[in-house]
Amino acid sequence: MSDIDMIRAARDRIGNNLRRTPLLSAPALDEIAGRRVLLKAECLQITGSFKARGGWSAVSAIVPQIRARGVIAFSSGNHAQGVAHAAREHGVPAVILMPKDAPRAKIDNTRALGAEVVLFDRERDDRDALGAELAERRGLTLIKPFDDALVIAGQGTLGLELAEQAARAGVTEADVLVCCGGGGLTSGVALALEADAPGLRVRTAEPESFDDVARSIAAGEIRRNDRLGGSICDAIVTPQPGNLTFPILNRLCGPGLAVTEEEVLRAMALAFRHLRWVIEPGGAVALAAALFRPRDIVGDAVIVVATGGNVDGALYARALQTLEAPGTAA
Amino acid sequence: MSDIDMIRAARDRIGNNLRRTPLLSAPALDEIAGRRVLLKAECLQITGSFKARGGWSAVSAIVPQIRARGVIAFSSGNHAQGVAHAAREHGVPAVILMPKDAPRAKIDNTRALGAEVVLFDRERDDRDALGAELAERRGLTLIKPFDDALVIAGQGTLGLELAEQAARAGVTEADVLVCCGGGGLTSGVALALEADAPGLRVRTAEPESFDDVARSIAAGEIRRNDRLGGSICDAIVTPQPGNLTFPILNRLCGPGLAVTEEEVLRAMALAFRHLRWVIEPGGAVALAAALFRPRDIVGDAVIVVATGGNVDGALYARALQTLEAPGTAA
Repeated sequence: MSDIDMIRAARDRIGNNLRRTPLLSAPALDEIAGRRVLLKAECLQITGSFKARGGWSAVSAIVPQIRARGVIAFSSGNHAQGVAHAAREHGVPAVILMPKDAPRAKIDNTRALGAEVVLFDRERDDRDALGAELAERRGLTLIKPFDDALVIAGQGTLGLELAEQAARAGVTEADVLVCCGGGGLTSGVALALEADAPGLRVRTAEPESFDDVARSIAAGEIRRNDRLGGSICDAIVTPQPGNLTFPILNRLCGPGLAVTEEEVLRAMALAFRHLRWVIEPGGAVALAAALFRPRDIVGDAVIVVATGGNVDGALYARALQTLEAPGTAA
Repeated sequence: MSDIDMIRAARDRIGNNLRRTPLLSAPALDEIAGRRVLLKAECLQITGSFKARGGWSAVSAIVPQIRARGVIAFSSGNHAQGVAHAAREHGVPAVILMPKDAPRAKIDNTRALGAEVVLFDRERDDRDALGAELAERRGLTLIKPFDDALVIAGQGTLGLELAEQAARAGVTEADVLVCCGGGGLTSGVALALEADAPGLRVRTAEPESFDDVARSIAAGEIRRNDRLGGSICDAIVTPQPGNLTFPILNRLCGPGLAVTEEEVLRAMALAFRHLRWVIEPGGAVALAAALFRPRDIVGDAVIVVATGGNVDGALYARALQTLEAPGTAA
């Protein structure tokens, strides 16, 4: 099955079990960006992020007798919730390994979705050994966060929707900015648009100092991040692009963009004011690039994927403080 | 023309100029409420509140030669933006009289929509005289915030959508909680549901100490609020129900509900966490009633209208602090 056929098959399996998120805009954001900005509101997806798509795609594709034993995932956040939701809806157990220091809200939300959360100590425990032991003993199927063809296909369903929605909005040529971690969403969307909207060019958006994907695309080979800790955009900081995702990103995506944390916080606050959606830091990187890197973007319109909305209150409150700062009250 | 025909005519005039907002849910909120909770996400409406509906309905119905001179409205917030948006889209001027001490964000947003904002001093200026003088000199048509048949009809379009969406979700018998100020939205929705979904019973939600509508319905005649200042739910605090709206509310609505400010703040925070929408205090009153007054509500499901999402960052940050408080981290 070709890549696009896998994405269409994932869409068929997802059916009406997840939301078709809207593509929306706000005049005030157009003004700041200096061009039309169309935002795909994936923070309004079930579980609050696009990860519900990949989770559903993967869980729904497992042979029923195997699936009945359950699934397992490693995640401190959105992938955990996506897999937990898909497992619950399929009536099968989910075990999620999360670091002890993961945000309390994400642990609570994952448990609320019915998953068994196994906490590990980042320092003392061997996460992979712990997972392998659990998977083997209980016959659980591992759902990887991005470097998995079924997960990529699931995330690609967002691209199918985007192609239709952009065409209906009269946009057939534009940069599409996607918040990028391991590249599962970005590569899936790029494959979908290659087939259904070839005038839309995908570009990655990342936080500065964690722009492994942009550097990898520029170099034509995989580059790693120097460090992994210390970003507010925790959801999209990964060591390097995946072995499956990188060749797709390298073939289909334009130059990557990187923004500062201050710009991410301001983008979150402007979304609060003008869209009334909650966007998490890792989900606001693409909007920040659209608003604050206008010269690096081509065309009269830009499309932004707002990938998720799971963020702690204290960090969100910090973002809102940027509305008080001079020059940002637009 | 009958009431329901006026609402259907307003829907036809609105067409695709405004958004059909989704009816969504979140399992965590169902759990807190002890029943299924379906939320109409009107905070995602253009201009961030349902007021865009009434504004469009009224502006679009004015005879073109008269409309060309412009419209005028008094408002410190959402009605201002609704009227300004409708006027801009019709290519006519809008003058909005706002108190000098209105939130800066609302003044800025109204100006960004192209309106001429005239600030007045609540203490020194005679607002009505100022407005009458401007209207007469420039031939502006006054758009009242709620006690106007065209405005009520516009707000009622939300009810037409709700009837369809609730039926599709399998809910034909339920309480529908609507955040209520002067009663324009509540009466319009009640009329729409009377025609299209008679099993859905509208009930008003208000802040405690500002529950003039609940008391008026209970008494069968108009009751006033003792005071008007000092509520965080500024958008829905009005002196008393309207002369047009009260008879409709009195005939069609069930007993009103009232909630505390602390409950409103908690509802805003829970919407942040579980829905990823921004709801303003006045727009969260109905959700607060659904979550924290379960014994006062009838049935296995409850429908909540989240009416708006325009709120200052500092007040929103205060709401988010309730997530840290014990017993509210659900």
